[in-house]
Amino acid sequence: MSWPTSDAVLGPFFSSEAMARTFCDTARIQAMLDVEAALARVQAAAGLIPREAAPVIADAARAEAFDLDQLGQAVLAGGNPAIPLVKALTARVAARDEQAARWVHWGATSQDIIDTGLVLQMRDALALIEAEFDRLGDRLALLAEEHAETPIIARTLMQQAIPTTLGLKLAGWLSALTRSRQSLDALGPRVLVLQFGGASGNLASLAPDGIGLSAALAEELGLALPDLPWHGQRDRIAEIGAALAVLLGSLGKLSRDLALMAQTEIGEFSEPTGDGRGGSSAMPHKANPVACARIIAASSRAPGLAATLLAAMDQEHERGLGGWQAEWEALPDLFRLASAALEAACFIAEKGRFDIERMRANLALTSGLVMAEAISTALGRKIGKAAAHRLMERAARMAVEKRRSLRDCLDADPEIAPHFNPAELDALFMPENHIGAAPEFTGRAVAAWRSRQS
Amino acid sequence: MSWPTSDAVLGPFFSSEAMARTFCDTARIQAMLDVEAALARVQAAAGLIPREAAPVIADAARAEAFDLDQLGQAVLAGGNPAIPLVKALTARVAARDEQAARWVHWGATSQDIIDTGLVLQMRDALALIEAEFDRLGDRLALLAEEHAETPIIARTLMQQAIPTTLGLKLAGWLSALTRSRQSLDALGPRVLVLQFGGASGNLASLAPDGIGLSAALAEELGLALPDLPWHGQRDRIAEIGAALAVLLGSLGKLSRDLALMAQTEIGEFSEPTGDGRGGSSAMPHKANPVACARIIAASSRAPGLAATLLAAMDQEHERGLGGWQAEWEALPDLFRLASAALEAACFIAEKGRFDIERMRANLALTSGLVMAEAISTALGRKIGKAAAHRLMERAARMAVEKRRSLRDCLDADPEIAPHFNPAELDALFMPENHIGAAPEFTGRAVAAWRSRQS
Amino acid sequence: MSWPTSDAVLGPFFSSEAMARTFCDTARIQAMLDVEAALARVQAAAGLIPREAAPVIADAARAEAFDLDQLGQAVLAGGNPAIPLVKALTARVAARDEQAARWVHWGATSQDIIDTGLVLQMRDALALIEAEFDRLGDRLALLAEEHAETPIIARTLMQQAIPTTLGLKLAGWLSALTRSRQSLDALGPRVLVLQFGGASGNLASLAPDGIGLSAALAEELGLALPDLPWHGQRDRIAEIGAALAVLLGSLGKLSRDLALMAQTEIGEFSEPTGDGRGGSSAMPHKANPVACARIIAASSRAPGLAATLLAAMDQEHERGLGGWQAEWEALPDLFRLASAALEAACFIAEKGRFDIERMRANLALTSGLVMAEAISTALGRKIGKAAAHRLMERAARMAVEKRRSLRDCLDADPEIAPHFNPAELDALFMPENHIGAAPEFTGRAVAAWRSRQS
Amino acid sequence: MSWPTSDAVLGPFFSSEAMARTFCDTARIQAMLDVEAALARVQAAAGLIPREAAPVIADAARAEAFDLDQLGQAVLAGGNPAIPLVKALTARVAARDEQAARWVHWGATSQDIIDTGLVLQMRDALALIEAEFDRLGDRLALLAEEHAETPIIARTLMQQAIPTTLGLKLAGWLSALTRSRQSLDALGPRVLVLQFGGASGNLASLAPDGIGLSAALAEELGLALPDLPWHGQRDRIAEIGAALAVLLGSLGKLSRDLALMAQTEIGEFSEPTGDGRGGSSAMPHKANPVACARIIAASSRAPGLAATLLAAMDQEHERGLGGWQAEWEALPDLFRLASAALEAACFIAEKGRFDIERMRANLALTSGLVMAEAISTALGRKIGKAAAHRLMERAARMAVEKRRSLRDCLDADPEIAPHFNPAELDALFMPENHIGAAPEFTGRAVAAWRSRQS
Repeated sequence: MSWPTSDAVLGPFFSSEAMARTFCDTARIQAMLDVEAALARVQAAAGLIPREAAPVIADAARAEAFDLDQLGQAVLAGGNPAIPLVKALTARVAARDEQAARWVHWGATSQDIIDTGLVLQMRDALALIEAEFDRLGDRLALLAEEHAETPIIARTLMQQAIPTTLGLKLAGWLSALTRSRQSLDALGPRVLVLQFGGASGNLASLAPDGIGLSAALAEELGLALPDLPWHGQRDRIAEIGAALAVLLGSLGKLSRDLALMAQTEIGEFSEPTGDGRGGSSAMPHKANPVACARIIAASSRAPGLAATLLAAMDQEHERGLGGWQAEWEALPDLFRLASAALEAACFIAEKGRFDIERMRANLALTSGLVMAEAISTALGRKIGKAAAHRLMERAARMAVEKRRSLRDCLDADPEIAPHFNPAELDALFMPENHIGAAPEFTGRAVAAWRSRQS
Repeated sequence: MSWPTSDAVLGPFFSSEAMARTFCDTARIQAMLDVEAALARVQAAAGLIPREAAPVIADAARAEAFDLDQLGQAVLAGGNPAIPLVKALTARVAARDEQAARWVHWGATSQDIIDTGLVLQMRDALALIEAEFDRLGDRLALLAEEHAETPIIARTLMQQAIPTTLGLKLAGWLSALTRSRQSLDALGPRVLVLQFGGASGNLASLAPDGIGLSAALAEELGLALPDLPWHGQRDRIAEIGAALAVLLGSLGKLSRDLALMAQTEIGEFSEPTGDGRGGSSAMPHKANPVACARIIAASSRAPGLAATLLAAMDQEHERGLGGWQAEWEALPDLFRLASAALEAACFIAEKGRFDIERMRANLALTSGLVMAEAISTALGRKIGKAAAHRLMERAARMAVEKRRSLRDCLDADPEIAPHFNPAELDALFMPENHIGAAPEFTGRAVAAWRSRQS
Repeated sequence: MSWPTSDAVLGPFFSSEAMARTFCDTARIQAMLDVEAALARVQAAAGLIPREAAPVIADAARAEAFDLDQLGQAVLAGGNPAIPLVKALTARVAARDEQAARWVHWGATSQDIIDTGLVLQMRDALALIEAEFDRLGDRLALLAEEHAETPIIARTLMQQAIPTTLGLKLAGWLSALTRSRQSLDALGPRVLVLQFGGASGNLASLAPDGIGLSAALAEELGLALPDLPWHGQRDRIAEIGAALAVLLGSLGKLSRDLALMAQTEIGEFSEPTGDGRGGSSAMPHKANPVACARIIAASSRAPGLAATLLAAMDQEHERGLGGWQAEWEALPDLFRLASAALEAACFIAEKGRFDIERMRANLALTSGLVMAEAISTALGRKIGKAAAHRLMERAARMAVEKRRSLRDCLDADPEIAPHFNPAELDALFMPENHIGAAPEFTGRAVAAWRSRQS
Repeated sequence: MSWPTSDAVLGPFFSSEAMARTFCDTARIQAMLDVEAALARVQAAAGLIPREAAPVIADAARAEAFDLDQLGQAVLAGGNPAIPLVKALTARVAARDEQAARWVHWGATSQDIIDTGLVLQMRDALALIEAEFDRLGDRLALLAEEHAETPIIARTLMQQAIPTTLGLKLAGWLSALTRSRQSLDALGPRVLVLQFGGASGNLASLAPDGIGLSAALAEELGLALPDLPWHGQRDRIAEIGAALAVLLGSLGKLSRDLALMAQTEIGEFSEPTGDGRGGSSAMPHKANPVACARIIAASSRAPGLAATLLAAMDQEHERGLGGWQAEWEALPDLFRLASAALEAACFIAEKGRFDIERMRANLALTSGLVMAEAISTALGRKIGKAAAHRLMERAARMAVEKRRSLRDCLDADPEIAPHFNPAELDALFMPENHIGAAPEFTGRAVAAWRSRQS
């Protein structure tokens, strides 16, 4: 009887389909079988096992031929999926060639197969991540350039502060991605390495061919050869998990900002609706930012999963009791969540709509008070910083108390008004004149992305 | 095309089958459909919808009739599985009765259905947990009684300390379970409650029947009626998650101790081998404690998942954006892991073997030094505490330095030997004479378990 | 030389002063000394140690007499603070009475003193928590009653949905607190218990007086007597940590909502400014919700700390190697953070200002669209649900596309307008007529709080 | 009145003194003041503020002149320590030069000062980490070389497996450190960067000098200039936190192995005792591995703290509400714990004692069964793999059942004995003949460390 599945309904929300396929049962088993097949090939080439055994083993190493439910049940007895898989593979090989069957898994240990299989899956997974990553970054870079001078109110502690630009917001999100990209790039060589150590990690049963065979196997699989087997040293797993969690954190920040901007009362951003997407016939004004929700949900789950991998590093001696097994679902979960968040972020970046008009309206919401600092600076150039500050404070207080616009209060102030002509004041009240170094910063971030050097 | 599944190979390791079934796709959908059916029934009974609509809706509400993959794909657009499910249910009802179809999901919101569905699943899940829990606790209680006076060395900071009893070890594990049982019992009424609030949590569209209908729906489903809907208040979810994590922590502690006792060099405990279980033909001395590994793996994953639920409590206003969704897999994962750990702990408790002989041998490993404190106390009664302490320190130092047994050193010590006759010394060196209140403590813990009152 | 301190600058932000005092160095040492003094008293009373030793020991047991920096340095050698403390205490007693000094710490182990000392601190800490808790809950209950019918827009996925009441929001926050209060109340008896087991947890060196003495010591300290010592079973610590994290999560949710309401563009809530509090002279419109920031910061740190305690449950045998020590700062941190969050929440609840006018304005922001569902229901009573739904959708779409108010669109719709007279429509557009069961739910939550029974 | 401190008693256990000093209150304030002084200097140099203001400001910027308790109390009102610090600094400057006081903090925002101050502290902290790191790695490398061929039993799932070498164990620990070192090295340039953005992150109030001034300030402080200010993008903080957690995880793994080896029953490693260190006069056989306990405790706390930083990345808009503040203690805690763990690991590596004799005795514990695989391979070369396997299984089973040594059983087996002469068998039973590639792997890891290239 089949094991009950729980992927269909929520799977698409928490993973891209390609990533789900990379870490599905079949892919997990196939990756392990690929390692067995490659091992047989290099051992045959080295003359360690009969030359004719390798193709028989490789032919039998096709995931679709195995009963996954049966393997799953057998994991309980041996404590890992490689034991029953090797047994089943051996039986399949034996059915065709009894001699070849004796050389299946020769000199290897379960963890060699499972870990190297995982590394192969991670290689595919990282390629998926990187492709989406680049798509997202390139799109954000374009948007940042487009909006390099588009004014928007900056908000600190969720309060309106002073003007900035939409481009700088976009550049901030992009800049974090540039660093995540660098970090993943740097990790690749450390993580995409062979695991091959035999029963105790020193390849004793293959002596004196252990290291030579390792090098050949690594090459056959297109992986790097690590300094030594790492059965009990799991920093690689923890580090890749943490890097994915940081990426998810940066995507979560992007989505948090967009979700805040998408609030009905703010309206500076909206996700596309239509085809039932995020809309509601009963509440026609609603445009639920469901892609943001998807990203934030993924991002919220990352710290706990990363912590699980960090805590699981405490693996005893040459092979851990429990810690190793704790990685088996947590790391794929992080890859899945990262893929879902990237997919949703690409969707947002490509299909979402910024409402420049609402940004402008929001800039005007305080009747000019958000410009007070800028005007104080300008006035300071004429009458000195201290005097300007004192006068502007008075004017601003009046604006708040009398609920008048700051402009009115300035016009009415006999100590301020004489210092500006109306055109000057008009200009001072234009947010686009107070965006500081936002365009330059934006340009720097875009250039950093394009060179992948933050 | 089907969504790729990832449950078959590792599912059985990380869940009992019954729990996997409780939280599988089909069960999730059926629980939601059960809520829709119950809602229709109580609304029909209250005259709010046509009496004849209810049975049509209930008939259509069978999970096996729905295309789970299609539902999964549709979650992306609306952001939750209830939207496409209600649409599909409505279509199924409409195919038989257009009128009835208009009353599907009447007055409810997606979250009502999803959360109440989850509560129904949790009720089943808690029943599974409790049954295994009782089985485990009863077995540990028996073992504790059986071994109430079986000497074993106590170990602190992983160093041999002084004798204690196996019964007290068992009683310690049991005592933690008694408290977890209490804690889950206390939680039940707080957690197994209806979620029914409509679009904004006040059942406005059902006014003035909202509360009456809530009470009827709660009764129909066999749930308690909470003071108010809890769409945005998620302490219930976090609390049950934390309680499961505490339970997993206590099972992890039990397994940690057993795995340490099962070390080749200690040998005080072993899991059953045979049928390929934990054994190795190449390494005939090995008896891998794979059930312990399963429990420790499950237990290691719990803190991160509990933290995810705690962090997800930060849900905005009347329905959260991301936090709610972050619960959807994390909470079922905790139930699954708890079920796996309980299943494996029952297996261990029922089939594992304690090796009393090895316990006795280990007590003798320090050639009597672990008895020094006990003998010092006895000597103190004769010559005073301070003098006794001084003499015993000297004898113990000699035993260590000369690698002689402490007994030899005492016999050879002219200031100590005269105070004891050989029979007295024999008795003093018997660990069973120095187990203090271990039997009484054990009895208290067993009684506490049986009354479920720690 | 003094150890460098890091409490002064950020301490007040992350703790109430009373809680900081409860868990400061001096309090930690004093609590341990209180246990030593109590132990001496009950042992003297039982005739186990000389009657005159007890007062000498108790007199010496004053934290202010010990050099905390010296104790701190000595923790490194022995691995816990009780070892050097007992040594220093013994020296102090010996200075006055050599005989009494021999009975210091008689039969106890370091962990007995440290854990029971912690329990005494927790008792004080829980009393502080409960007092603030009641203050907060009572205030929220009053506010909820006051605003039971005050309309406010409900927001789901951070989008305006339909009207609800401010009272129901307040009641939701309160309801979570009621459950936290229950949960802490239930925990008390399980957690506030003696730790007293001696070197290996069975009080062997005090046989046959172990249990009697335990009972006397528990009574002397006003603590409950557990079924057995719990040196290696740490579910109590994890459970109290999780309960504090849940409380912090609920306070975080409250603050998240208020911070969202306090956004400049929404303006439904503000923290008091003045005395430099949260204000800015350069940005006169700003009213930073700094108390909310304090609560959210505290709340954000809780899941990680709770996870630390859960993970630390894996303590080996009769005394753990590292797990126990991992609790020493994490649990006090959780108490501190909870106290800070409660203090800030009380401040907000007592001094914060709700802006009813802005709530009303925000309800009007969509030009009536948020009332569409309510009006559709009313129209449905006249012309049938399906027809009403179709007409209202059309009107709403027109309102969105033409940027006209929904009221205008209804007035202009020849199929809708005839069904209502203007007064009817006026009433339908009043949010207070569509708050459903909010007042009843609010009343239920207030009553639940007052009875402490959610 | 002083804020109660909690650093003295446990501080030394959870931090090195140098690291505690790097993150103490005074250091935190001084780092912030250093930023203010540097800012004044570069602004004076650029002619933006009066030349004579800079030295006055710099002179006043000495932490010891400020009342830390008063600053701490004032954090509550403004929500961060920079606001009261700037106020107090301004007052101090004004006391000497009213004009200069007007230019304190010119164009900066609180977060600029706090974050850049933190970066300065992190630079010091990373230097401390790196120095200890190198000391530890160099020592482990020496030990690995020394023990490259020292046999020890490998243990998988905490069961004896087959022989390996102590050198390979040491090399495994070292290899993880090499990668952590690389990872921290790569992080440095990304993390040790200026934070300078002014109120909204675009340096508007300093236009058009913003970027030029940023570059000058970065240079003055010896920091890199990032592409843009990062007030709301916190990946740097999360990434450094995760890197420290990975380092702590690897140190935890090292300590876990050593603590297991230090068990009384195994005895392959011991920490130094003496001077009360880890010893016990009542239990003279005990040598508590307290340095291991310190490392494991530190390591156990890291995942939760790293998760806190990851979760806190979700910071709103241009400055977060709560997330930023959540970093303030969590990141320093991680540095402290890393310093404590490194200090203790250096102590262990330099003063701990490996017991080669016990390693040899443990290799013999199974009466030769751990050599069965090696002998089977040798026999296979003579009679074929399958036959050898069958015979050896029989012999091993007999050894287990009859409790005889494997050697005896081989000698007694008429099908096996003839194939070996006694000298051959002697050699086969010597573990040092079955260490496979352990020495080569060890050499590779040592070389990788020395080149810092894993």
